[in-house]
Amino acid sequence: MTSPKLARSPPSTVSAPIIVSSLLTVQTSGSGFTDLTSEIAKFLAEAGAREGAVTLFVRHTSASLTIQENADPAVLHDLTTALDRVAPENAGWRHDTEGPDDMPAHIKTMLTATSLQIPVLKGELALGTWQAIYLIEHRRRPHRREIVLQFAGSTA
Amino acid sequence: MTSPKLARSPPSTVSAPIIVSSLLTVQTSGSGFTDLTSEIAKFLAEAGAREGAVTLFVRHTSASLTIQENADPAVLHDLTTALDRVAPENAGWRHDTEGPDDMPAHIKTMLTATSLQIPVLKGELALGTWQAIYLIEHRRRPHRREIVLQFAGSTA
Amino acid sequence: MTSPKLARSPPSTVSAPIIVSSLLTVQTSGSGFTDLTSEIAKFLAEAGAREGAVTLFVRHTSASLTIQENADPAVLHDLTTALDRVAPENAGWRHDTEGPDDMPAHIKTMLTATSLQIPVLKGELALGTWQAIYLIEHRRRPHRREIVLQFAGSTA
Repeated sequence: MTSPKLARSPPSTVSAPIIVSSLLTVQTSGSGFTDLTSEIAKFLAEAGAREGAVTLFVRHTSASLTIQENADPAVLHDLTTALDRVAPENAGWRHDTEGPDDMPAHIKTMLTATSLQIPVLKGELALGTWQAIYLIEHRRRPHRREIVLQFAGSTA
Repeated sequence: MTSPKLARSPPSTVSAPIIVSSLLTVQTSGSGFTDLTSEIAKFLAEAGAREGAVTLFVRHTSASLTIQENADPAVLHDLTTALDRVAPENAGWRHDTEGPDDMPAHIKTMLTATSLQIPVLKGELALGTWQAIYLIEHRRRPHRREIVLQFAGSTA
Repeated sequence: MTSPKLARSPPSTVSAPIIVSSLLTVQTSGSGFTDLTSEIAKFLAEAGAREGAVTLFVRHTSASLTIQENADPAVLHDLTTALDRVAPENAGWRHDTEGPDDMPAHIKTMLTATSLQIPVLKGELALGTWQAIYLIEHRRRPHRREIVLQFAGSTA
């Protein structure tokens, strides 16, 4: 049925999903990455999540989400460098009343993710071995950031 | 249970979600941002949405979505500048039969969002204070753009 | 009710959604695009999907997803060029133990999509005429990539 380079497992089905919502507050310590993976796993455990998906939504325009390698910290350093090169400070931005790091923060947010969805299978986040879920703070100073968590699916 | 810099609200749960779908058509007036927030709020009100999430999906490859600051118009101007710098016209693109602004439009679409998900809590979009939902037209000329709206969750 | 440049179709509603999950494995032949559209349509047909949405989630940090033009292969070539310009090899990255194409692959993944959601209406993917769903392999060598597929909605 499928071409040789594609394979697909038999589908598993659940019915009667419920929706569980929660608000996660993260105090960042300035620009950089915060690993949210274990906190989201705790939320799913408390919700009794079995099969479905969890949605993350950042309620800000100068912080965002990404799923990235969790092994070598140099990866996170280089991702920051790459974003700084695409959205440098003092590059002729008109919006500068909130400081030179504000407009670059908006651009970096646009180029990464404000919302993310991760499937949940057998009660576990369906992440790959090397994947972690990160909040990226794009402002230089510490901020209090709010992330809506929402699981939709079946529960134990 | 959580580390000091993280806090999470008690989960709220609803059951028996329904799915409500609609097609939103937007006539753009050429390249730039169209604020869709109030139109999506109207859709949710008509659907009687209470708790769940709304998905937006753009049915085009030269227009896209972003959630960005709604206060200072200079932010949208600078976002356009940033996208133009990453995807300039006349930069040696092979695909040029549809005009010099077409291939940059595809690149800008790839770097922003074709699908977005926003949680809905107590009947309201769970946006932050400064967030608005924008359609970005990347072509120079006006276009008729189609966006699928879909709410999944509980209703009043 | 709506402004002249916006129009919205009457909402259609379904109840009692189910969730169908499957794992798609793709053997890539090195860097480039693999069109997943027909395989996802097969998954939806086998699941008896009617109305809802399908989520795709890539379980890797050096391969990602995009929805792009399916007509002119030059578009895919130019998208690759654009990503190479934003994330070139040998650009002073600290993370280089896995080869010069590894850190650029992580950056390209961050700038495109790890998760995507596509509405399903009347049993069909609600894609536009020119849209296809692509897996982008960012590493030079062939890799075996896993993508979680999940449909949530009503079934026949």
